[in-house]
Amino acid sequence: MTHAGFIMEKLSALNAKPGDIIAVNLPEDNFIGVLMPHHQFSDPDILIIKLDNGYNIGLHINKETEINLVKKLVAQEKKQRAIPVDKTKPTIHIIGTGGTIACYVDYRTGAVHPATSSEDLAFSVPEIFDICNVKTEVAYQLLSENIEPDHWQILAEKIASALNNGATGVVIPHGTDTMGYTAAALSFMLQDLTGPVVLVGAQRSSDRPSSDAAQNLLDAVRVAAAGSIGEVVVMMHLDSSDAKTAIHRGTCVRKCHTSRRDAFVSVNTPILGYVDNGEITLKQAYRKPGNGPVTTDTALEKDVAIIYAYPGMKPEDIPEKKGLVIMGTGLGHISTSLVPRIKELIEKGATIIMASQCIHGRVNMNVYSTGRDLIKAGVIPLETMLAETAYVKLMWALTHGDTKEQIKILMKTDISFETPEKTYFNEKKR
Amino acid sequence: MTHAGFIMEKLSALNAKPGDIIAVNLPEDNFIGVLMPHHQFSDPDILIIKLDNGYNIGLHINKETEINLVKKLVAQEKKQRAIPVDKTKPTIHIIGTGGTIACYVDYRTGAVHPATSSEDLAFSVPEIFDICNVKTEVAYQLLSENIEPDHWQILAEKIASALNNGATGVVIPHGTDTMGYTAAALSFMLQDLTGPVVLVGAQRSSDRPSSDAAQNLLDAVRVAAAGSIGEVVVMMHLDSSDAKTAIHRGTCVRKCHTSRRDAFVSVNTPILGYVDNGEITLKQAYRKPGNGPVTTDTALEKDVAIIYAYPGMKPEDIPEKKGLVIMGTGLGHISTSLVPRIKELIEKGATIIMASQCIHGRVNMNVYSTGRDLIKAGVIPLETMLAETAYVKLMWALTHGDTKEQIKILMKTDISFETPEKTYFNEKKR
Repeated sequence: MTHAGFIMEKLSALNAKPGDIIAVNLPEDNFIGVLMPHHQFSDPDILIIKLDNGYNIGLHINKETEINLVKKLVAQEKKQRAIPVDKTKPTIHIIGTGGTIACYVDYRTGAVHPATSSEDLAFSVPEIFDICNVKTEVAYQLLSENIEPDHWQILAEKIASALNNGATGVVIPHGTDTMGYTAAALSFMLQDLTGPVVLVGAQRSSDRPSSDAAQNLLDAVRVAAAGSIGEVVVMMHLDSSDAKTAIHRGTCVRKCHTSRRDAFVSVNTPILGYVDNGEITLKQAYRKPGNGPVTTDTALEKDVAIIYAYPGMKPEDIPEKKGLVIMGTGLGHISTSLVPRIKELIEKGATIIMASQCIHGRVNMNVYSTGRDLIKAGVIPLETMLAETAYVKLMWALTHGDTKEQIKILMKTDISFETPEKTYFNEKKR
Repeated sequence: MTHAGFIMEKLSALNAKPGDIIAVNLPEDNFIGVLMPHHQFSDPDILIIKLDNGYNIGLHINKETEINLVKKLVAQEKKQRAIPVDKTKPTIHIIGTGGTIACYVDYRTGAVHPATSSEDLAFSVPEIFDICNVKTEVAYQLLSENIEPDHWQILAEKIASALNNGATGVVIPHGTDTMGYTAAALSFMLQDLTGPVVLVGAQRSSDRPSSDAAQNLLDAVRVAAAGSIGEVVVMMHLDSSDAKTAIHRGTCVRKCHTSRRDAFVSVNTPILGYVDNGEITLKQAYRKPGNGPVTTDTALEKDVAIIYAYPGMKPEDIPEKKGLVIMGTGLGHISTSLVPRIKELIEKGATIIMASQCIHGRVNMNVYSTGRDLIKAGVIPLETMLAETAYVKLMWALTHGDTKEQIKILMKTDISFETPEKTYFNEKKR
């Protein structure tokens, strides 16, 4: 979807391009900001401008709306640049999926560019070309809250194809909201990886002074080009400094803060490694790249849900699905009053998994009677596995086991480091 | 509910009392452990024994089951002890609700006692009587996963009555699973508190060497007896040491680990204070006790649910309720494909709140189009409020506002410190 014709006419009459500063006069308010490229999922009559505070807002424009050019910053069309090639260097593929990381400016000139291609994204951090050759493609351009299981499947195929066509590693710029879910899905869908698959996001877009986009992308490229790991990982800022990025295992990582750059946390396990001023350190045992070819196994059962338990939950609040992940309280509990409903659903064929809303720690349903009653009813406890990972794995396992017992065995078998043996608690107290 | 007659006969024939070590021979296995008191919510034919590993198991006993006494530890009936009274000291009330903290042993002699009264609990930590006079009562004996909103209401009345009858403060031993929900509920239900209301739990029961029960209870009593705070707070271990307990605000605290003693975390706010080797330090501004009387306002709308968003969620996964708290992704998002359903539910009269599954950080729905679409549909973002607290507050607000606008204003008005102004991130990275 593009801008409506009348918006394009207005902008064209002003010679206003994305990156220029414009003023929009609406009946209720006036806005001044940087003209942003049209987002493919916005309505045609929406104009997006970036305000001084760094936030983008979408404004409904009609034919009468007055738009003025305040400052011309973008002088001419961006020239097509050729990606340099150096045959002595490894080649990585960047597969774009959208998200904050894909809205960028050239961080030296400050000019805003639409991330119409992953190539643009690579050019926004030209140090990348010192490290490796880059091939780019765009899988889709989505805010990650709009990414659906179908998109995981598309992405898995593209990654396999990239690795089977000679890429040392793959970098996937991705929205942060559901990056953990995608990383978990890819961890189960991709087999015999011949190199690293690195998901990377940004909490703040490149036109904000505190942006983490360039650093995260550069370090993700470093890890992909190094080619040491045969796993799906997620890379984001390790702490509040700009020097370090963490390498998180794809099945154990979770967005644990809405806005901080170090929002991503490895749960129940230490981080796999980190990059500090360009130096990669791997701290844990990891899977080495295989000889390939990379294969995909992407079948998913989509009749699965996550349920969050709370006091006052009623039996009818637990829906009939082929699979359910319950985020129970504490060690993996729900109210005794709900056990008959759970039992009924399991008898009807549902596979029901118990995770904990505590997020951290191990589910253990043998300690209290409520847990034992649930086990007796057939609920499967998943030890240290994240609820989000359990959800993705259950979708996958339901298409891979023919009987309840096979599905249970699959869920309890550690396939991609999703069930850390020990637990580590990463919460800091004040 | 008590043991079945035949179990009582067997135990009586052996002169086996709770605290003695018994052996139970079942067809499939033999168990040796400490005989536990019958749990009021267990079936009459269940015998509970505590195994060497510290866990309790419930065993189905029938008339043929062989039970033997292995070691007699409890020689005689516990004598009724009189609680000492010292008129120069403040008086606190301990109102029992059940949970791990209420299963205790005398931690010096090692003998297991049933926590049939809060008095027993107080006697298990006799240092309490050096601090204050104690009045005790039991509101109910429940594992906290079985506590329902009705129980919050009962508890609020008992607390108000205790404070209005001269208690300096109230201590509420409580199961940890839903202690955060109860603390939030009491924070909204109790008005004009004349002293501290301290919820306290234990992650490990008193018969385990690593138990936190005695320390937590003692420090809770200290804070209640000091009488400085006119708020509902939660007290648990501050860190892995035994010397410090944290004082968490009732509306901002969450169980963030399944089993660690320092599982409770103040989210988006520093702790209110701590007790270190018996010394109370208050770090933040807090509400002083009022002159009373304490009043209660316990009406709750129970047609409310918490919904956890995930990729692949379908419109029909969002139920029709009077109130919904959505734990969205990131800054407070759900898939654009669900917005029509949200809109429909709001038009039908639902109040829908947005919190974040990130747990930490501020909800901000102005940054991305998905958030703005939800605000346009009428979803109410709750800034820094915990999803669990938002759930409890919504149940309360729905009975306190006549119009949608009044309910919205109530939800957005900070009533009991539930919306910290700044956010603090308590996650530690490795």
